Amino acid sequence: MITELSDYLAQEFDLHFKNLDLLAEAFTQASYVNEHPHENLRYYERIEFLGDAVLQLLVSEYIYRRYPELPQGKLTRLRAAMVQEKSFAAFARECHFDQYIRLGKGEEMAGARNRDSLLCDIFESFIGALYLDQGREAVEKFIRRVIFPKLDLGWFDHAVDSKSALQEFLQRDGDVNIEYDLIAETGSENAPEFTVALMVDGQPICQGTGSSKKHAEMAAAQAALEQFRADQQ
Amino acid sequence: MITELSDYLAQEFDLHFKNLDLLAEAFTQASYVNEHPHENLRYYERIEFLGDAVLQLLVSEYIYRRYPELPQGKLTRLRAAMVQEKSFAAFARECHFDQYIRLGKGEEMAGARNRDSLLCDIFESFIGALYLDQGREAVEKFIRRVIFPKLDLGWFDHAVDSKSALQEFLQRDGDVNIEYDLIAETGSENAPEFTVALMVDGQPICQGTGSSKKHAEMAAAQAALEQFRADQQ
Repeated sequence: MITELSDYLAQEFDLHFKNLDLLAEAFTQASYVNEHPHENLRYYERIEFLGDAVLQLLVSEYIYRRYPELPQGKLTRLRAAMVQEKSFAAFARECHFDQYIRLGKGEEMAGARNRDSLLCDIFESFIGALYLDQGREAVEKFIRRVIFPKLDLGWFDHAVDSKSALQEFLQRDGDVNIEYDLIAETGSENAPEFTVALMVDGQPICQGTGSSKKHAEMAAAQAALEQFRADQQ
Repeated sequence: MITELSDYLAQEFDLHFKNLDLLAEAFTQASYVNEHPHENLRYYERIEFLGDAVLQLLVSEYIYRRYPELPQGKLTRLRAAMVQEKSFAAFARECHFDQYIRLGKGEEMAGARNRDSLLCDIFESFIGALYLDQGREAVEKFIRRVIFPKLDLGWFDHAVDSKSALQEFLQRDGDVNIEYDLIAETGSENAPEFTVALMVDGQPICQGTGSSKKHAEMAAAQAALEQFRADQQ
């Protein structure tokens, strides 16, 4: 199992582990250790403890530098979305780490291999092992491929509001001027409807409607984000 | 204020900041920025966001390596004790950081300068600024002086139990054999009292008593820890 994993990591990610015991530890659950009491095995929890902190720092530093104007509250929400169990489990699945976990029979039968909480743990312990084996640079290279591109794909837009997300998206390559112009107020007094036009550097991009000016602006920003991202593909 | 702080850091900690704006940002609260709207100042919150993650990783990595047999649960409790608000506030006071914070008048009057939550924030933002200005090595050097010695002084013993703390303390320099021998059961049936003798590599060190065997062992471990630490001074 560990030889296969090591070969897979070399082939797929150009990662060459020196300490295969560490790699094995990162992919071994306690249930497996309990079933093999004479093999003197270790399970992933301690390495996961370290990997969790490595990910926290590298994600924090990346978004701190990438979004120089985002206030702390939004940085904190964005980080929380990026490092949450659901996200790490998705990254683990994308990397096919589920195939390489060593589980006890009971846990296997109970479906642990496809459980978000286990996959999240394994993603963290893999990062911890990579950090111990090859240092911070190797982890950065790996997460530049596996985590950071998801920002551009909009995975975490819900964590910051659409207007902030649009602003950050457009200002990656320098300052742009974003305006929301109210162009219509329709509906009744009890059910008003606002329409705004979103202008980027004076050019109209799209419109948004909503039950308040703020909701209309959010709708316009969301539509613009989707449009710009579709254009990039 | 910032020149004084910079001089103080150079003199006391041999730290020479290149980017004094960053250092100023780390010691400036929002209330001060609000009172000086024309000076285009920034306040510490974003840097604190980063500093928090830097401290989490460096503390995690240190205790991961220092206590190679401590299970994840205890590592997590120990880290929580080390990075909690009360601890960081104490470190900030020890470093006299409270003297250099730029506060608005209202916050000053309200006693913010001596508030644990602010001092904790400032400790984190200082670490964030140090990390950005001079990299991880400089932060490690600083916390090897300010944080890690507190482990040997027993500041965080409550986070792991005394028996574990004693074990880790004694096994820093290699394997030792620790035994707790029950030597007396006294008291009544409703109020029993147990006495154990603590043996290290076969040598009796001290005794402990308690209402259960476990409590007696904990008392013995605590007494031994205090004895060994006093011997070290």
